[in-house]
Amino acid sequence: MEKRIHNFNAGPAALPMEVLEEAQKNLLNHKGQGLSVLEMSHRSKEYDAILKEAEKDMKELLGIPDNYTVMFLQGGATLQFAMVPLNLLPEGKSADYINTGVWATKAIEEAQKLGKTVKVIASSEDKAFTYIPKKFDISPDAAYLHITANNTIRGTEWQSFPDTGKVDLVCDMSSDFCSRPVDVKKFALIYAGAQKNVGPAGATIVIIRNDLLEKSPKNIPTMCNYKIMAKEPSLYNTPPCFTIYMIGLVLKWLKKIGGLAKMQEINVAKAKVLYDRLDKNDFYRGTVEKDSRSLMNIPFRLKSEELEEKFLKEAKANDMIGMKGHRSVGGIRASFYNAVSMESARALVAFMDEFEKKNS
Amino acid sequence: MEKRIHNFNAGPAALPMEVLEEAQKNLLNHKGQGLSVLEMSHRSKEYDAILKEAEKDMKELLGIPDNYTVMFLQGGATLQFAMVPLNLLPEGKSADYINTGVWATKAIEEAQKLGKTVKVIASSEDKAFTYIPKKFDISPDAAYLHITANNTIRGTEWQSFPDTGKVDLVCDMSSDFCSRPVDVKKFALIYAGAQKNVGPAGATIVIIRNDLLEKSPKNIPTMCNYKIMAKEPSLYNTPPCFTIYMIGLVLKWLKKIGGLAKMQEINVAKAKVLYDRLDKNDFYRGTVEKDSRSLMNIPFRLKSEELEEKFLKEAKANDMIGMKGHRSVGGIRASFYNAVSMESARALVAFMDEFEKKNS
Repeated sequence: MEKRIHNFNAGPAALPMEVLEEAQKNLLNHKGQGLSVLEMSHRSKEYDAILKEAEKDMKELLGIPDNYTVMFLQGGATLQFAMVPLNLLPEGKSADYINTGVWATKAIEEAQKLGKTVKVIASSEDKAFTYIPKKFDISPDAAYLHITANNTIRGTEWQSFPDTGKVDLVCDMSSDFCSRPVDVKKFALIYAGAQKNVGPAGATIVIIRNDLLEKSPKNIPTMCNYKIMAKEPSLYNTPPCFTIYMIGLVLKWLKKIGGLAKMQEINVAKAKVLYDRLDKNDFYRGTVEKDSRSLMNIPFRLKSEELEEKFLKEAKANDMIGMKGHRSVGGIRASFYNAVSMESARALVAFMDEFEKKNS
Repeated sequence: MEKRIHNFNAGPAALPMEVLEEAQKNLLNHKGQGLSVLEMSHRSKEYDAILKEAEKDMKELLGIPDNYTVMFLQGGATLQFAMVPLNLLPEGKSADYINTGVWATKAIEEAQKLGKTVKVIASSEDKAFTYIPKKFDISPDAAYLHITANNTIRGTEWQSFPDTGKVDLVCDMSSDFCSRPVDVKKFALIYAGAQKNVGPAGATIVIIRNDLLEKSPKNIPTMCNYKIMAKEPSLYNTPPCFTIYMIGLVLKWLKKIGGLAKMQEINVAKAKVLYDRLDKNDFYRGTVEKDSRSLMNIPFRLKSEELEEKFLKEAKANDMIGMKGHRSVGGIRASFYNAVSMESARALVAFMDEFEKKNS
């Protein structure tokens, strides 16, 4: 048995062991074809089978309606911050944004940088982004409303998604994509970096309602044009083939464990283990309002920065890594993405109990 | 021993067997760290070591001067077609392009689509792109001259690069990057998709002279901005970590075999095996003018399309894949990238001899 640490990284993050084993087993010779997936032409029928299967499984897992297109693109959420307004926000129109932290702020600033008019209709900046705004008025003539499903840095998450009426809802789902079921038809566009819950780094999933494709103007970069990208999805130019293959394996794993409803059940149970510990006493202190807590990223503080440093150091000595809070906020953060096991969650809490005993 | 086919794909393409074996061996547990490279945080010191090593080895192999920055980006050459004019071609200026085929044409059209003024100072379209133009006048006030080092589809390659005087030379080196030594200081900017000679698909190498970074305007998408991308190279947002890791392994392999001069020697010898066969008689017919022949992609025709189809079918039955010519030109094309062995080149020619005997 290989050594296996507890990986609480905020992303790229843990992958299911059986997915890694499957990839390893086939790395030199995929299905007896005498070459690696890493060497396959993206125009070969062998690779096409991999791509189409990943698309199909994603549609099945998320229940994506037929009038949506699924694409695996590149450039991360950061490129989407630009693509969304470039394609969907014509001159003379304005879009609504809700600011729930660093990533939402970046999305807003990117649109502004490109000369677009945006309106921030709600923000949780007043309390250091420790909650999800509950009240806001959507501009009835907004080109779209943009929200960030989960804030990786602050550990907040939309527990349910707003009803936007006739206004198209655009969602950056990077850090909780496929961690729970979502009603895709509520959204006009969903985008997500793969590297949290569904694969390694290097691909961005875009799910777009087909009527939006008609909005793409011609004079934007080809690789930023949803319409061109959707024409032959994930195959306009050479895609990140191996990353898409790995995503496909993770999707099979998700199907095997019982789909997204089951995944959510597991994620709720895992997060409860840690949140219960945070709520037990004041030695560890959760930083997020309870009704906005994320199942994915759980930040907390100790009494002092010195104690936090000691905590991280001893955690590492106990094979628990990736818990240093984001450099912009400090503290501790444990990320409990799909592939982080209940065993890892329990090991962390056992370590926390032990650490409290020795340091209180 | 695993089954291993002869992979003549035009890209993604063959990788060195020992690189694949190394990746496979470490896939579950990188250097005893208890996690896969696929799961590593891009901000961890373990991943930073991988990234910095790949950068360092690339600088060493290509002899990249200190006033250049090396970056691993996403989006392929197609995104570079946009990034080059977006960053380097201000309004009121014009850039020169030389058109040597489909990819150069796409670069030209992308610049035009973005409202930029370009001047095509030479083209080999008059003879179906079967040669590299030898004569052209560079506009003395051009913002840059853009060329395509190797035409993957037609099988032409610049044997030596033009002297551009004071005009900056920008080169799409996607399909012969690291196949031979180049004098980097002749270039202002080199870009290349990894998936031909240096790794799997999913990363684009950009080598840029640092003074050019000052030209990037502020109002372009962040992911298209060379200056922002170069600030903390390959780490503005989550990079394609595993692809960069694989590139690093290929660069180590290139160093081990003796560097790019040695690689060129091997590539010349491999290509000679096939070109000698094409020059032997008229059964197979090379399509490119001799002084423009590529060492990377070697297209040829047989007497009829029926015979070509038969050739491809029998080649496949003999474990030789990836030789169907690009859909825009038809015929046969064998790609002899770095990782294609002399053994594969010889096996192909032996098969061609055999096929001729049976069909003439």
